[in-house]
Amino acid sequence: MSRFWSSLTHDLKPYVPGEQPRMVSLVKLNTNENPLGPSPRVLEAIRSEATDTLRLYPDPEAAALRTALATYHHVRPEQVFVGNGSDEVLAHAFTALLKHDAPLLFPDITYSFYPVYCRLFGIAYETVPLDQAMQIRVADYRRPAGAIIIPNPNAPTGVALSRTEIATLLEDHPDAPVVIDEAYVDFGAETAIPLVASHPNLLVVQTMSKSRALAGLRVGYAIGDADLIEALTRVKDSFNSYPLGRPAQAGAIASLEDEVYFQRSRARVIEGRERLNRGLVRLGFDVLPSCANFVFARHPAHEGAALATELRQRAVIVRHFPAPRISGYLRITVGTNAQIDQLLSVLSDILGSEPSEG
Amino acid sequence: MSRFWSSLTHDLKPYVPGEQPRMVSLVKLNTNENPLGPSPRVLEAIRSEATDTLRLYPDPEAAALRTALATYHHVRPEQVFVGNGSDEVLAHAFTALLKHDAPLLFPDITYSFYPVYCRLFGIAYETVPLDQAMQIRVADYRRPAGAIIIPNPNAPTGVALSRTEIATLLEDHPDAPVVIDEAYVDFGAETAIPLVASHPNLLVVQTMSKSRALAGLRVGYAIGDADLIEALTRVKDSFNSYPLGRPAQAGAIASLEDEVYFQRSRARVIEGRERLNRGLVRLGFDVLPSCANFVFARHPAHEGAALATELRQRAVIVRHFPAPRISGYLRITVGTNAQIDQLLSVLSDILGSEPSEG
Repeated sequence: MSRFWSSLTHDLKPYVPGEQPRMVSLVKLNTNENPLGPSPRVLEAIRSEATDTLRLYPDPEAAALRTALATYHHVRPEQVFVGNGSDEVLAHAFTALLKHDAPLLFPDITYSFYPVYCRLFGIAYETVPLDQAMQIRVADYRRPAGAIIIPNPNAPTGVALSRTEIATLLEDHPDAPVVIDEAYVDFGAETAIPLVASHPNLLVVQTMSKSRALAGLRVGYAIGDADLIEALTRVKDSFNSYPLGRPAQAGAIASLEDEVYFQRSRARVIEGRERLNRGLVRLGFDVLPSCANFVFARHPAHEGAALATELRQRAVIVRHFPAPRISGYLRITVGTNAQIDQLLSVLSDILGSEPSEG
Repeated sequence: MSRFWSSLTHDLKPYVPGEQPRMVSLVKLNTNENPLGPSPRVLEAIRSEATDTLRLYPDPEAAALRTALATYHHVRPEQVFVGNGSDEVLAHAFTALLKHDAPLLFPDITYSFYPVYCRLFGIAYETVPLDQAMQIRVADYRRPAGAIIIPNPNAPTGVALSRTEIATLLEDHPDAPVVIDEAYVDFGAETAIPLVASHPNLLVVQTMSKSRALAGLRVGYAIGDADLIEALTRVKDSFNSYPLGRPAQAGAIASLEDEVYFQRSRARVIEGRERLNRGLVRLGFDVLPSCANFVFARHPAHEGAALATELRQRAVIVRHFPAPRISGYLRITVGTNAQIDQLLSVLSDILGSEPSEG
């Protein structure tokens, strides 16, 4: 408590990101990073920006990057917004598009940053429960809504909706902005971007942090009707004119130019997910069907928190959420094959070394 | 107007940054960039970050950079906040510290982003007029204030207050947060950082964009009492966990490690400012006494807007603000000696080629 803080600041409950340990020897499977690095072309593009031109501001409109994204996704540059990671893009979307008189709807189990944004921006919201299988049911959203935001695949479950289900959601709410947060879409779900042309209420948010292995560079973007993009731009230009530096803009463009690398990289992560999946099932875990670069799994005979602690003691970090309905689960990022095998081996030791009815 | 926009979005009046032309042949003296590049150590540090580790998130707490800034400025790391350019730092300060029941005070002639933030965050404000000499008078701020923000040197005038005057302002308002925005302080003004230890209401904001020639990298920071920094951190962690990517954190640390380069660079900009100053005075301009890397000047016989347009036609860009009290002025960034001489030569042509009583 401080007399200098705004009253809003006292009320905030900040998001808690996954641990970024400084011990490099840990098997780090807690923040859904890509086990493979970015394209060599990205690294070369960043090196090329390490020149005297850093004295100059970057393009505040990021025109070259927005054009590259537009070409890649078959839309116009006016339909593209870029930001400092998809979290910043989401933050601006909450301000620009998700604050209305009727409540914002999102799943009860979802990206835990959403209620944090609502508190920061004073947005009324209601959560819609996942069904018993931890799936989003689009029909459950047929209620008054000022706006809707849903991750697809959902986090931290990894479970995806089909594009047809997203279309139904959009058509059920023609007057409400609907944000589909596709941070993990490249690992096996269907993007909603093709629906943008026919649905002026749709904003799709993606990131280069996961499938393009650029979490360290901070580039996210949104694609939607030019009218929605203009709203985001107005908010951005009232907040920070230059969210993306020169290395970030150049690196992001280079990533889009190496499609072969991108396709190979995401295919290898999907293969790794299946390897991880099979191994966990063999150890007796229930694993939700994931379309992401992580799996969400629980063991019928072991507490999630205890398992996470025991893994940590053995130098493997996974993410555990002490929250209703999901405290039994672990969210495990797909690592390299070696990391997956080490995790499975350590888990096997833990499960074998304790009394268990599993 | 759009039915999908939040009502706030309709009301925004975004900041308009200076032009970032794509024509490299222009003499660009409009956005206060450093005519010299960053330290070679910064470039090397950025190149060193172009590796596979970009797949990993950066440190959300930027501990190494905050420690480096703390050491440099003789404070503790808990007294340092970093953000994606000082504009983002300012945005968070408006939310966290400058929104109170009583109005925020700032000068009538100042950084034009301040009223934009106020509109975005719903902050009531009052402006305090500069005196006839375009100077801030601290005594004029002796009125009810929820908080105060002042750039020192002021923008776009370049005129500075002494540290003693800042101390008076702080002591006049012990219960109000006071933000001193020192974007240009390294070019000849006195920083207020030594006052932090004795004034818990002081937040000093600085940037690496100007004196450290890193506008293209996006690094700003704030120094103040740990209680004020905690407020900024709460807002930041409710907005975007990872505002600074790996290249930005590494480059910023390297800049702090090359003090010789920094001192030489700012000395050369100060020399250039005096050269520009003398040349403008010779051409009949009134030039305000600048402690920044730009000057604010008007010609008694020529309109500011017309001069800016004529300069643009001759491939020289300066900044003109079509606003009350300052529409007669040009804000001219200190360039290289060659750029300064070219500007003066072109101005001489313009002034000589027209009927003038100047």
